[in-house]
Amino acid sequence: MSKTVIVTCHPYAGSFCHALMVAAAQGAKNSGQDVDVIDLEAEQFDPVMHSADLIGFLKHQAQDEQARDYIRRLQDAEHLILVFPIWWELMPAMMKGFIDKVIFPGETFDYTANGTGMRSRLNHLQATTIITTMNTPKALYRWAFGNAIQRALIRGTFKKMGLKHIQWLSCNMVKTSTDAKRQAWLQQATQIGARQH
Amino acid sequence: MSKTVIVTCHPYAGSFCHALMVAAAQGAKNSGQDVDVIDLEAEQFDPVMHSADLIGFLKHQAQDEQARDYIRRLQDAEHLILVFPIWWELMPAMMKGFIDKVIFPGETFDYTANGTGMRSRLNHLQATTIITTMNTPKALYRWAFGNAIQRALIRGTFKKMGLKHIQWLSCNMVKTSTDAKRQAWLQQATQIGARQH
Repeated sequence: MSKTVIVTCHPYAGSFCHALMVAAAQGAKNSGQDVDVIDLEAEQFDPVMHSADLIGFLKHQAQDEQARDYIRRLQDAEHLILVFPIWWELMPAMMKGFIDKVIFPGETFDYTANGTGMRSRLNHLQATTIITTMNTPKALYRWAFGNAIQRALIRGTFKKMGLKHIQWLSCNMVKTSTDAKRQAWLQQATQIGARQH
Repeated sequence: MSKTVIVTCHPYAGSFCHALMVAAAQGAKNSGQDVDVIDLEAEQFDPVMHSADLIGFLKHQAQDEQARDYIRRLQDAEHLILVFPIWWELMPAMMKGFIDKVIFPGETFDYTANGTGMRSRLNHLQATTIITTMNTPKALYRWAFGNAIQRALIRGTFKKMGLKHIQWLSCNMVKTSTDAKRQAWLQQATQIGARQH
């Protein structure tokens, strides 16, 4: 059975972000996939890189027990889906901490022989999808505020560490969006979940 | 006496980032300023926006006791200096959480009457300086990876909430830098601290 891992971090069960996560999970279940949801807030993940974690990074061995568990769960995934809100043009601290503690050498990627390149150790992963909510207009986010999800997260993290087939569903101006628009986004999230890899 | 608040989050006392923080603090002390260091890692700050914090954001009242203490300390500052490492092209979770929980409506900024603009409530603040370390080449960071410190933090957060006179000292390729280069950066950090506002 194909496995989809969904990582999310919104603390409101009533948020649109949460609804997008549920829609993606439902899509994956409907298409017969095994779905594993990592809810960082509910699981009280500690996003901080402490001294031991930094030493672990240099030794290529994750130290945080919860991060090690997430790494194991990611290693079985065919599809990784991240669902989170954008606050101050960037991901929440919780999601940044997930990146810092889980995108780890010797665990989810390796450095190539010359020491500068990276290759993924997530050997089953076929695709990664990012689903975000924000209240910034799309053009402002992309052209004025640096487009950090595309450039720092997709290009500067996931592509750099060797992942392929990365897509991003950006739900912009959520607060003022129509019901019809929200329904369309939820349907897209369901389709993303249902995709076969 | 003029007051400088320095916010930092590197867990290694032996890091170059820590040395930059010490240099900035020393510069400020040397020039007769009152220096208040907020070491987020040492003070075990919780960077996560929990449900109560999100509700507080909507009610324009910070909930986290430590964040409230930081807000009070910022309200007296003439100069705010942030010192942190850049990991995966962005600030650590700890520093993102400081932004999320301290750049708060009703506390450090207000929305303008039409509800879209913002104005600072940090009434004594004359200048803000960001000092970062990274191992990414400057051109790659700026042109490929989105330049998130300039665009999301300086433009999309600090300028948006009404701060003025914001500068950024970016120490790039620290790992392979010469001793002379490091000395020059430390001297710049000392000068930043010593600046009168």
